[in-house]
Amino acid sequence: MSSVDRQLDDLHETITSELPADITVSDVKYEGPELVVYTRDPKKFARQGDLIRQLASKLRKRITVRPDPDALERPRDAREKVMKVIPDEAGVTDLDFHEDTGEVVIEAEKPGMVIGRHGSTLRDITKEVGWTPEVVRTPPIESSTVSNVRNFLKQERDERRDILERVGRQIHREEMSDDEYVRITTLGCCREVGRAAFILSTPETRILIDCGDKPGAEGEVPYLQVPEALGAGAQNLDAVVLTHAHLDHSALIPILFKYGYDGPIYTTEPTRDLMGLLQLDYLDVAAKEGRAPPYDSEQVREAIKHTIPLEYGDVTDIAPDVKLTMHNAGHILGSAVTHFHIGDGLYNVAFSGDIHYDDTRLFNGAVNDFPRVETLVMESTYGGRNDYQTDQDDAEERLKQVINDTHDRGGKVLIPAFAVGRSQEMMLVLEEAMRSGDIPEMPVHLDGMIWEATAIHTTYPEYLRDDLRDRIFHEDKNPFLADQFNHIDAGEDERQEIADGGPCIILTTSGMVTGGPIMSWLRHLASEEESTLTFVGYQAQGTLGRRLQSGWDEVPINDGESGRGSKISLKMDVETVDGFSGHADRQGLMNFVKTMNPRPEKVLCVHGDESSTQDLSSALYHEHNIRTFAPKNLETFRFL
Amino acid sequence: MSSVDRQLDDLHETITSELPADITVSDVKYEGPELVVYTRDPKKFARQGDLIRQLASKLRKRITVRPDPDALERPRDAREKVMKVIPDEAGVTDLDFHEDTGEVVIEAEKPGMVIGRHGSTLRDITKEVGWTPEVVRTPPIESSTVSNVRNFLKQERDERRDILERVGRQIHREEMSDDEYVRITTLGCCREVGRAAFILSTPETRILIDCGDKPGAEGEVPYLQVPEALGAGAQNLDAVVLTHAHLDHSALIPILFKYGYDGPIYTTEPTRDLMGLLQLDYLDVAAKEGRAPPYDSEQVREAIKHTIPLEYGDVTDIAPDVKLTMHNAGHILGSAVTHFHIGDGLYNVAFSGDIHYDDTRLFNGAVNDFPRVETLVMESTYGGRNDYQTDQDDAEERLKQVINDTHDRGGKVLIPAFAVGRSQEMMLVLEEAMRSGDIPEMPVHLDGMIWEATAIHTTYPEYLRDDLRDRIFHEDKNPFLADQFNHIDAGEDERQEIADGGPCIILTTSGMVTGGPIMSWLRHLASEEESTLTFVGYQAQGTLGRRLQSGWDEVPINDGESGRGSKISLKMDVETVDGFSGHADRQGLMNFVKTMNPRPEKVLCVHGDESSTQDLSSALYHEHNIRTFAPKNLETFRFL
Repeated sequence: MSSVDRQLDDLHETITSELPADITVSDVKYEGPELVVYTRDPKKFARQGDLIRQLASKLRKRITVRPDPDALERPRDAREKVMKVIPDEAGVTDLDFHEDTGEVVIEAEKPGMVIGRHGSTLRDITKEVGWTPEVVRTPPIESSTVSNVRNFLKQERDERRDILERVGRQIHREEMSDDEYVRITTLGCCREVGRAAFILSTPETRILIDCGDKPGAEGEVPYLQVPEALGAGAQNLDAVVLTHAHLDHSALIPILFKYGYDGPIYTTEPTRDLMGLLQLDYLDVAAKEGRAPPYDSEQVREAIKHTIPLEYGDVTDIAPDVKLTMHNAGHILGSAVTHFHIGDGLYNVAFSGDIHYDDTRLFNGAVNDFPRVETLVMESTYGGRNDYQTDQDDAEERLKQVINDTHDRGGKVLIPAFAVGRSQEMMLVLEEAMRSGDIPEMPVHLDGMIWEATAIHTTYPEYLRDDLRDRIFHEDKNPFLADQFNHIDAGEDERQEIADGGPCIILTTSGMVTGGPIMSWLRHLASEEESTLTFVGYQAQGTLGRRLQSGWDEVPINDGESGRGSKISLKMDVETVDGFSGHADRQGLMNFVKTMNPRPEKVLCVHGDESSTQDLSSALYHEHNIRTFAPKNLETFRFL
Repeated sequence: MSSVDRQLDDLHETITSELPADITVSDVKYEGPELVVYTRDPKKFARQGDLIRQLASKLRKRITVRPDPDALERPRDAREKVMKVIPDEAGVTDLDFHEDTGEVVIEAEKPGMVIGRHGSTLRDITKEVGWTPEVVRTPPIESSTVSNVRNFLKQERDERRDILERVGRQIHREEMSDDEYVRITTLGCCREVGRAAFILSTPETRILIDCGDKPGAEGEVPYLQVPEALGAGAQNLDAVVLTHAHLDHSALIPILFKYGYDGPIYTTEPTRDLMGLLQLDYLDVAAKEGRAPPYDSEQVREAIKHTIPLEYGDVTDIAPDVKLTMHNAGHILGSAVTHFHIGDGLYNVAFSGDIHYDDTRLFNGAVNDFPRVETLVMESTYGGRNDYQTDQDDAEERLKQVINDTHDRGGKVLIPAFAVGRSQEMMLVLEEAMRSGDIPEMPVHLDGMIWEATAIHTTYPEYLRDDLRDRIFHEDKNPFLADQFNHIDAGEDERQEIADGGPCIILTTSGMVTGGPIMSWLRHLASEEESTLTFVGYQAQGTLGRRLQSGWDEVPINDGESGRGSKISLKMDVETVDGFSGHADRQGLMNFVKTMNPRPEKVLCVHGDESSTQDLSSALYHEHNIRTFAPKNLETFRFL
């Protein structure tokens, strides 16, 4: 009998003895980090409101109670009863009964009303029909990504349960080693930006944190081939943890499944969806540029299938000796600072991922409040001694000025922007500026993946800034649904019509003018002297965006039909508005550490070019007397 | 066609074009680091004295010329002719013809006379019979280890040639990576003494340096199980390099073959033989102490079979991007400082192994003269701020005093000593002291493995200190053959007889009184107040030696026949004479670095307890402004 089976037997016994005699427990299983208790008396369970919470706190486990299949009402009968329990205002859009797990998935416009106060409505549902309700939000804007992911997971439900059960047994296996150490190996993004990847290892456990590519240097990938990375194979990893969906952190995760990885990916739910969207786009771009993609869409689906979503603040066992907690990082939707508690009070490591320290319109500032962190691995994108950014208020003023000037001239404002994050921030700025009359009301056209990315944002308002979330939740005044926003969905004809029309604002991808609909917009608008091309994000060396920003006045045009290239000259006004970064600037990074309490003993400065990491490392050392490092790739640090 | 085959074809062509038209080259092969040229005209080759040297320098390869089998005289005829060419004074003791390689192995008491001036006699042999002569020394004292190793290698000749050919092709494979880095991973002996093991890695190559055990803590072995060590398996290693034979550096090497390693071990010839001796003894001790040995004698033989012996100063390709050179380390017979030249002038790393900086009676001081060394990995056994040793002259005076006092009382001097190194140093001290009349002539009895270890020393006089070697070579006055030395080879009866006799000196293992014949000697002599137990080496915490040294006066005696334990009380005088260490003391370690020119940029202080490594690291930093580290086990440092 394996140690996990012994453990489950003991748990079965303990739970039975803790429960009232009339509640029978038919089985106890691990599924991922959760303990699942099967009962033939789900209704009685539900009647005793606090039972599950008491059990969870006694056993120090996350517990889910599921009904035995024979204790369930038939779906046909149950459907009606469930709908009666849920208030109409909840706006239920779908009910889906899974007989294998006894779960009913309820998709509703207002999930809070399905849950009820402290979960009372959920309990009422179980009391009524025996089924275990699981609630998801109906996306306020329809997102094909979200519905694809949900449908896919529904379809793969059986395999997914097998995965979760296997992972659960792995997590709760017996510890084998009596050695004690904590190590971090750098596989990428040291003294450079891009290809983030780290291994956190103990004698028991090996965890990969992020696995990204390096934009503009597609050949440079994380050092997965060195033995530190995958050891005797990808199956040697216990877990993959993803801080956020940007490709320099997520692009190479699917390749792990090609290499034989078959374990869990821990991340937030919005990161899972955005990751899928961006990885598929990554394959698309590779194909268009004639590069052989390193994996195909099948592995993207594997990644999604293996994702175990965590919410901010959930303390989750991910290995016998490691607990993971994710916290808001303020960088993009679902981005997380990941905190690892190792052993029983032995050591704590936090990886900042990419962070924004101050609040933005979209997000609360990054969390830096942990019970303990001995070592912090910290991004340094703007860690250089002079990397101070324009204040966002000033940036917004400047942007409004540009828009007003252009509007006065009868021109259009063309803004290349990243689909995820920057675009939604812009939408919020523009919506408010129009509402308050700072700029005239005019259409804001959204092209490329922006609309889809926005739809994903509105699916997960819990991950947005408090007051923004409240506006969506309570006031039902979702700014992303404002009338002026128009999703370009009819292609070239629609663009032509807009180009022929009056003043407007166009937000479009790609953010660095390296392809996508921005190329078409330039062809339409390049000759308009009254219009303005406005940069609101970082333009990397080597991109057309950077060239245009620095005064270049020719735009290469690829004529789609003939396949030949030609050039048109750019007559538009070109403006740059700094201050909308998703990254903390030097001050923000310093503040992130300064306001930590207790402060970490050691900080590894990564994810920045050589001088940024060294500047930040040196500043943190001198100001706070912390031991700091600016690691190179392929080093291993041992703590303890 | 593989790149190695292409390379060999090119070499074949070049060599043919460089040679006179009447010399035909039938084949060109790699065997280990050497290029072997087969010719149908070995005699003509031999006639042109400088041809091989010219070729070697032109091709920058080590070249061996071998005759085609059909160009050879029959052994029966050749034997007589060979003996005619070699002067009688050479003292040939064996001739062995290998038809597969065309080699004749000549064992002689004076190998130099078989070689002749600049190899002239060797060339004469080939001119006469076509066979390629290979010369080995007849051990002046018969060593069963040496003859076992030689017989074994003779018997495994075919497989050995296969191994060498495979290794040769590996070494000369094409470089695959255009990345550049040099890394060191610490697998043991950091902030501790014992279980030495390091990985030196480049994008191309992974080399294991040493693989030892930890005496007194047999469970603590190098971290071979972490993926950095053996990666996707032991076959992932390109080479194993052994600095010297002591078990804390060599004990776990055979286990690699159990794990599937099948590559070369580079070390000196005496280290190979001593390693075999000590590893077999290691298995023996494990069996006696009831521990399951981690491998068996079969793997010891594999290790010997895979050893490619190098001489001090030979620059040897061991991988496409790594050249290895071994230099005298002054610590024990065959001990080496290993220098790695990586890439074409890219980077240089030296591992000190264990060193003695000053000359001893046995050895010249450690070599620290390299064209370049950017990083030095350095032992720190006596690196602590107060680790200064008694001067050896003073130590010798003190020892002579102890011996004279004991002799005057009519007693015997019992010296526990390590078989390898310390014992031979003692023998030289005693031989000279008697020759010069500083102590009276009396028998010196050698018990345990000491005689065998001494025999190995006399087989390799080239590895001993200049003047000692000269005494053995030119004056034929081998001090180890002095009359007073008696090898105890008749067991208990002989010991009883000696114990009943008059004043004498007994050198015996084990050095820390943890077993072996010293236990029997204590039983015989414990009650003799006039006799002296004299410690001349380090006694580790927890050993009986340390207890007796600190005043304990009881010796546990295991009665061999009844199996019961009892105790006898120790009446002997107990003396400690410091100053015979095989390790450099603090001053020696500092001098080793101080007199390097150029000095290394970085020094990793290892192989010492926590305070010793940190003290030495800090002292080197403050005196020479070198970047120094006192690594922990399981860290990886990247240089470049």
